Amino acid sequence: MNPEVLLSRIRVVLCRPSHPGNIGAAARAMKTMGLSDLRLVTPKQFPDAEADARATGAVDVLRSAQVVESLGGALAGCVHAVALSARQRDLGPRPAGLRESVAALLEMARQGEVALVFGNESVGLSNDEVMQCQSVTGIPTDSAFSSLNLGAAVQVLSYECRMAAFANQPPVVPEATPFVSPPATHDEVEGLHAHLEAAMTASGFFNPAQPGRLLPKLRRLFARARLERDEVNILRGILASLQKPTGHGRRD
Amino acid sequence: MNPEVLLSRIRVVLCRPSHPGNIGAAARAMKTMGLSDLRLVTPKQFPDAEADARATGAVDVLRSAQVVESLGGALAGCVHAVALSARQRDLGPRPAGLRESVAALLEMARQGEVALVFGNESVGLSNDEVMQCQSVTGIPTDSAFSSLNLGAAVQVLSYECRMAAFANQPPVVPEATPFVSPPATHDEVEGLHAHLEAAMTASGFFNPAQPGRLLPKLRRLFARARLERDEVNILRGILASLQKPTGHGRRD
Repeated sequence: MNPEVLLSRIRVVLCRPSHPGNIGAAARAMKTMGLSDLRLVTPKQFPDAEADARATGAVDVLRSAQVVESLGGALAGCVHAVALSARQRDLGPRPAGLRESVAALLEMARQGEVALVFGNESVGLSNDEVMQCQSVTGIPTDSAFSSLNLGAAVQVLSYECRMAAFANQPPVVPEATPFVSPPATHDEVEGLHAHLEAAMTASGFFNPAQPGRLLPKLRRLFARARLERDEVNILRGILASLQKPTGHGRRD
Repeated sequence: MNPEVLLSRIRVVLCRPSHPGNIGAAARAMKTMGLSDLRLVTPKQFPDAEADARATGAVDVLRSAQVVESLGGALAGCVHAVALSARQRDLGPRPAGLRESVAALLEMARQGEVALVFGNESVGLSNDEVMQCQSVTGIPTDSAFSSLNLGAAVQVLSYECRMAAFANQPPVVPEATPFVSPPATHDEVEGLHAHLEAAMTASGFFNPAQPGRLLPKLRRLFARARLERDEVNILRGILASLQKPTGHGRRD
């Protein structure tokens, strides 16, 4: 597939950015590398003159940026999302190397829209946001000073995407199981999780008042599996069939 | 040689930078990647409050930066210098690929001090400056918009240096995040499949007389996920809870 087309399928999602200047820098960084789809989750201030100034010739990327209320909205229709996070978490996807993660992202971009998800400048991504992604990675930094600017982080990732898209060899993807059915989109996976939660709540297995770590654990499992559409349908079919009152229970 | 030592031998030279903010951004970019030796050739304005502000926690890099009158002064004692230039020139070194150039720079750093040389924001490096370097390279950009910010360019190069310096080291982010729970054994996974099959058969979702590809598809999904023991227990717990006759179904 044409590298330019692959790059055009990559969304850059900035979650709750505080500084409009960083939004502008991100737009410029993206455009230098051939990316153009910017999505902003509840930016503190946007549009903004400082964002325009830092974007220089990439103001068109800002103008076409979508502003959404939640990460879910930014990921709608995506087949794969990579979270950028410096912190290690014990739940959520297993952190992977940066180049491996970008290679996998580009591989998935052959099948549909994909996303790179960046957190807020100070607090990064929430656990909930990380768990909506199929993969998590970080930019290797000096342990004594890991404070990468948001625009600089977008620059490094956009650059890596371009390098991977134009690499002569097809990217090496560790888990290269060919998809039998198209990958499930973000909203299809979210639908499964909602269905699971409702079924478990109705059956008493899950108590929303004392949620514990059950939902994150299920998210981690299914993120690791990178669900296909067929599989979501099968799992929801099983759930629906188990939820129906069984024949022997019906006496009327 | 220790990667940290190699990185400490890389000078970042900014020739005639116009915007103090970019000097600060460059300092921050360097420090995140373990570089610390900044040299400024006739900066328009330095020191400067805007430079300090953009450097955030890397003000120490600014404080120790050397200001010199010419590129020759910045390169004194260097065994190898790489010029960053987007433009092709008919004189001067032949442009080489970015990763090849960085690999060569790191190789030379084993023998002494080396330098990355960046030009002015608007006009880049002069021919004379390029010809003082042993090698010239550029950051691949979209031909329609190649206007990389100076700080962003320093970020990409510093990052590539770190990646190259640590290339043969064990990755910073370990692939092998320990399993949160031990991996499920073969028999535990088989127990899950048997449980699933029984539940689906009872609910009517699965018809053993016409099995189709349902069971192989579920096996493929859970094999890909590489289940942990905890996860098998959770999935079986969900199944068991859904199989219980619901209250409204029981009339006796």
